[in-house]
Amino acid sequence: MRKLLLLLCLLSGSLLTLQAEDGYRLWLRYEQVTDKALLKAYRQQLSGFYIPGSSATMAAARHELQLALPALLGQPIASQAQPQAGSIVAGTAAQLGKLVTASLQDAGTEGFHIFTTPLHQVVITGNTDAGVLHGVFHFLRLLQTQQPVQSLNISSAPKIRYRILDHWDNLDRSVERGYAGISIWDWHKLPLYLDRRYTDYARANASIGINGTVLTNVNANALSLTKDYLIKAAALANVFRPYGIKVFLTARFSAPMEIGGLKTADPLDAQVQQWWKNKVKEIYSYIPDFGGFLVKANSEGQPGPQNYGRTHADGANMLADAVAPFNGIIMWRAFVYSNTDADRFKQAYEEFKPLDGKFRSNVAIQVKNGPIDFQPREPFSPLFGAMPHTPLMLELQLTQEYLGFATHLVYMPPLFKEVLTADTYEKGKGSTVAKVIDGSLENHAISGMAGVANIGNDRNWTGHPFGQANWYALGRLAWDYTLSSAQIADEWLRQTFTNDARFIAPVKQMMLSSRETLVKYMTPLGLHHIMGYGHHYGPAPWFNKGARPDWNPVYYHRADSAGIGFDRTASGSNALAQYAPEVRRQWENLRTCPDAYVLWFHHVPWNYTLHSGRTLWNEMCYQYEAGVQGVQQMCNTWDSVSIFIDEERAQQVKMLLQIQLTEARWWRDACLAYFQTFSKMPLPQGVPAPAHTLEYYKELKFPYAPH
Amino acid sequence: MRKLLLLLCLLSGSLLTLQAEDGYRLWLRYEQVTDKALLKAYRQQLSGFYIPGSSATMAAARHELQLALPALLGQPIASQAQPQAGSIVAGTAAQLGKLVTASLQDAGTEGFHIFTTPLHQVVITGNTDAGVLHGVFHFLRLLQTQQPVQSLNISSAPKIRYRILDHWDNLDRSVERGYAGISIWDWHKLPLYLDRRYTDYARANASIGINGTVLTNVNANALSLTKDYLIKAAALANVFRPYGIKVFLTARFSAPMEIGGLKTADPLDAQVQQWWKNKVKEIYSYIPDFGGFLVKANSEGQPGPQNYGRTHADGANMLADAVAPFNGIIMWRAFVYSNTDADRFKQAYEEFKPLDGKFRSNVAIQVKNGPIDFQPREPFSPLFGAMPHTPLMLELQLTQEYLGFATHLVYMPPLFKEVLTADTYEKGKGSTVAKVIDGSLENHAISGMAGVANIGNDRNWTGHPFGQANWYALGRLAWDYTLSSAQIADEWLRQTFTNDARFIAPVKQMMLSSRETLVKYMTPLGLHHIMGYGHHYGPAPWFNKGARPDWNPVYYHRADSAGIGFDRTASGSNALAQYAPEVRRQWENLRTCPDAYVLWFHHVPWNYTLHSGRTLWNEMCYQYEAGVQGVQQMCNTWDSVSIFIDEERAQQVKMLLQIQLTEARWWRDACLAYFQTFSKMPLPQGVPAPAHTLEYYKELKFPYAPH
Repeated sequence: MRKLLLLLCLLSGSLLTLQAEDGYRLWLRYEQVTDKALLKAYRQQLSGFYIPGSSATMAAARHELQLALPALLGQPIASQAQPQAGSIVAGTAAQLGKLVTASLQDAGTEGFHIFTTPLHQVVITGNTDAGVLHGVFHFLRLLQTQQPVQSLNISSAPKIRYRILDHWDNLDRSVERGYAGISIWDWHKLPLYLDRRYTDYARANASIGINGTVLTNVNANALSLTKDYLIKAAALANVFRPYGIKVFLTARFSAPMEIGGLKTADPLDAQVQQWWKNKVKEIYSYIPDFGGFLVKANSEGQPGPQNYGRTHADGANMLADAVAPFNGIIMWRAFVYSNTDADRFKQAYEEFKPLDGKFRSNVAIQVKNGPIDFQPREPFSPLFGAMPHTPLMLELQLTQEYLGFATHLVYMPPLFKEVLTADTYEKGKGSTVAKVIDGSLENHAISGMAGVANIGNDRNWTGHPFGQANWYALGRLAWDYTLSSAQIADEWLRQTFTNDARFIAPVKQMMLSSRETLVKYMTPLGLHHIMGYGHHYGPAPWFNKGARPDWNPVYYHRADSAGIGFDRTASGSNALAQYAPEVRRQWENLRTCPDAYVLWFHHVPWNYTLHSGRTLWNEMCYQYEAGVQGVQQMCNTWDSVSIFIDEERAQQVKMLLQIQLTEARWWRDACLAYFQTFSKMPLPQGVPAPAHTLEYYKELKFPYAPH
Repeated sequence: MRKLLLLLCLLSGSLLTLQAEDGYRLWLRYEQVTDKALLKAYRQQLSGFYIPGSSATMAAARHELQLALPALLGQPIASQAQPQAGSIVAGTAAQLGKLVTASLQDAGTEGFHIFTTPLHQVVITGNTDAGVLHGVFHFLRLLQTQQPVQSLNISSAPKIRYRILDHWDNLDRSVERGYAGISIWDWHKLPLYLDRRYTDYARANASIGINGTVLTNVNANALSLTKDYLIKAAALANVFRPYGIKVFLTARFSAPMEIGGLKTADPLDAQVQQWWKNKVKEIYSYIPDFGGFLVKANSEGQPGPQNYGRTHADGANMLADAVAPFNGIIMWRAFVYSNTDADRFKQAYEEFKPLDGKFRSNVAIQVKNGPIDFQPREPFSPLFGAMPHTPLMLELQLTQEYLGFATHLVYMPPLFKEVLTADTYEKGKGSTVAKVIDGSLENHAISGMAGVANIGNDRNWTGHPFGQANWYALGRLAWDYTLSSAQIADEWLRQTFTNDARFIAPVKQMMLSSRETLVKYMTPLGLHHIMGYGHHYGPAPWFNKGARPDWNPVYYHRADSAGIGFDRTASGSNALAQYAPEVRRQWENLRTCPDAYVLWFHHVPWNYTLHSGRTLWNEMCYQYEAGVQGVQQMCNTWDSVSIFIDEERAQQVKMLLQIQLTEARWWRDACLAYFQTFSKMPLPQGVPAPAHTLEYYKELKFPYAPH
């Protein structure tokens, strides 16, 4: 017996060595429960599972339980033909009949109810198959995070209706701002070859409640709407459908000309309108539950209605009319800015606010969290709260375009929560961005949250093992934005790495402070967009050769001998006037503006004393140094706890933290060397002199940095 | 006890489900031996392993045994401090002392000797650490293929000195002619992040005897020779070194101008020569065992010595002089052709033969197997046998640029063996290409075989699971080109899939006929280079818009109302005059020229009767149809035996075969529809009419086909 036990251990050991933790399984690892008492309890409580439904979605639920339960419990678990004592019972109220006693009104079309019956059955139910599937994944999350399940009574429904991943993936498999390999969509091999990744992508998304995926880049290619590619997209939609996930595509506004042979793409032209109606009908013939279009128009060179003297509303409404008969929606992006003298900060608001109320009911305007572009910290976009008659979706960026690519460990929920909890004061105190985008503030039928995916064909999906946490968090927050960053980190860590508290506690703390650490070593005090030109890799605050003023870091920091920062008060661009008075008043007054935002709104003298009690220059120096120290602390933390997890990921993160530390120092040294040419002040004690001359940093070139 | 056994099975089962066979482990899977008698014998015979050496290479050998043996044997196996009865003993003769009784003269610097001692020890030895490591991998191959090991006496040494993978990988991670994702070299994250793949790549190569890797594309980028990239390359070299694998780089001939600031790259310019000497010295400061350069010069737009009125010898010798002090070599490619009226077939010979004897002793000329470009079937290059004073390396292409990309199952050793066994008659009968490239025919010190890698960051490395077999075969054949295609297929299948004879026999047969099947549905009877323009995807025999005559399929097939084929006899381009008389005589006579080569050398009337007894037109039709039938047979075979392997790879191959079948039909239909416009003859019975019109096939566009 002992010998056999030894053999068992050795076998497991060798299997683990040969099949190392490559990160592919994400948070659906289903490792055996390590808490012995709990494992015993689970084994006693759970006798098997009973799933009467036969739809593809119910098959997916069954498959997931079959995969997960034997692995989690380390013993076989039966698929039962009838519910028994201790059964896990999964089905809609209609399928389960009298087993479901409570009302499911709150569960809506995607939510679930999990409860324990007097016969110790765990009933997972909902109004729809998709709701039940979400419940199954939630139940497995309870097991994976080692929660007691003997007496459950959980109701949950999403606060947001459209919970979406935006893939900036091109047809040649390159990914714009992708740092985790190339696109997982292998267009060349579709539709006949269905990579296992497609199913696992759907499983992962369903497990966190994501219900839509935009397959193609917002910088769109009309060819993605041709028959060949629609058939390929349909093959993906077929894989995703059982998991409750709809496919969306990006619409290139000039497609009627490029693939339709028309002379114009004018949205008021009858031929153009008919072309889109025909095209949409064709799309739905391949993908009956097609979600609709995401559109980037008249922005950064993309064509749009303004090419024909029409408005964004004219363009969006034309497409909305085409998809309306099929219950599709249009997600129209507000990320616009043009080559004008106007502060780029102000332009989206100026273009879109006048259009409020002019969009069809199946149009949502997708607004980035901040007014510029996914910076490490931005004030919330002034459009939130400014378009009461229009559903606004929140667009977040998971891929770390401006946050160190996939080599920096940055846990983003604190950033996401910062904007979600920001108060627009649209209808007085408490009018948070969350209430704007969930539709509750203005009673909109459409509500949405989208994240620009950080997913590529790297084995672990996101490049950095911790990048998975941001994907996970997007889904969880879109489902329920009241979840705390700590709670999401906790459950993600337990599922992804281990339930060992010796690991969880310090690593959770490291995650929670990681975004603030990055802000410090990259863009402290409200600095923004001072990254390298084009690829956005590394610091380049000195760069001023961009073709347009607002493509240059110097445009954003405006450092001079007097001080640094962008005056957006009434004495400057007056962008602050776009906010509600309550917001504006706090930020326009240098005395009340938080240090974290000060250089977003003020040109501040170098020797001005901040709330911290230090002069601006000294505080900037301390922040940069604190950022570096913060990364060093992350390295130390990791070294002290990584023994509690598998060696492969321990090593991966260790190496990535070394890159992060190297680059944090580079950021500190290059930025301070440059800004010191304006402040003319010495580095305060404790801040080391830059390792190289400013010229050295300026001359660094990265022609093959991912971009 | 029974319960525990059950648990064990269930655990293994669930682990296997969660950790599916993704193909990552290649042929180093180390699954437990399934033959029960043999397993018992192994367990009794092998008591542990003893490795006295402490070098990095010996650590690699130890690591491999630690990884493999417990998994293969399903029981722990001890690392022993002293050799005992039944020990596996691995070390050089110097390390093992009197344990090594026989002479190791034949083992050379990389070979090994494995023998059983009277104490039933398995001694794995060699003159060098690398030799021992090769022996360890050979021993593990014996176990994986379930050979008896109770009485071993195996000596093996490589027949070829430089056994190399050429990566056509760019610094932006795109791979020229890559169909398995992007480059596994993640230049952006190097040198600090060392992907586990780098080690596993080295393990895989060492296991088959590959000892060199050219990291960068022959269409070279001078930046790969700058300090930043050399440090990155050095990090890779450090990973590979313990496995006996040297790093090579491609040299952009104009680098002295592009990164050196010189006004010229003239190889006779003293400054240029000095620049290369300095650069090489710098490279060796980072990579002390740097292998040397691979150079594509004055070919397809690449710069070279001819830009300065110098010869290939002038260029190669300049670089050779720079690397000679460090024992480096120059691999100078003979793949040249220019925009002249001369038959492209003849150009490499015409440029290089006059230079025979003019190269330094550390220069090898790397010659593609055929005179054109890696076609499904080519006659051997006439350069083989024509440059007796110069070491010639053989360049093969593993990546399937012209062989259906990574979606067609094509086992290439029959192609490789075809050229290796081809007789050049340089020194009379038996002067095979193999004897030319192994240096034995002319007693050259340098000998080499290179394969253009089919490796990318796809999880299974090569895209198609069977693509791994071609990588495997390159190593095995470079080590010993006398191995048969069947033997290599057999051992690869056993290690990669299963030892189950019900699977091995039919799949081996399928592999062995697969290349001939592809030739039939793609380019039967000596047709060549009739693929799509640029990307080479699919059939395009009609294409005639290329900027140069020899970039057009019509240049190669020359179909007209009289017949089809390229007359390379004395009445045509007379390319056949480049071969030895014995070769020329057979091929220039239509009566003796094999059907397989006939359209390579003759313009043949449509109604000419071939050796098969059919007219050319009918035979062409039958061949295309037979190719399609062959793929259908492959599908059937796979469906009948894939139950003997894991479901994941079974499904993958099944889907890929469906693509192959679809594309084989496309080739047949498009080519016959087109050629029929010349032959004006009906399709013979049994050959179905094309599914679409010729116009349909002509209008197909693939703007995002990988290329």
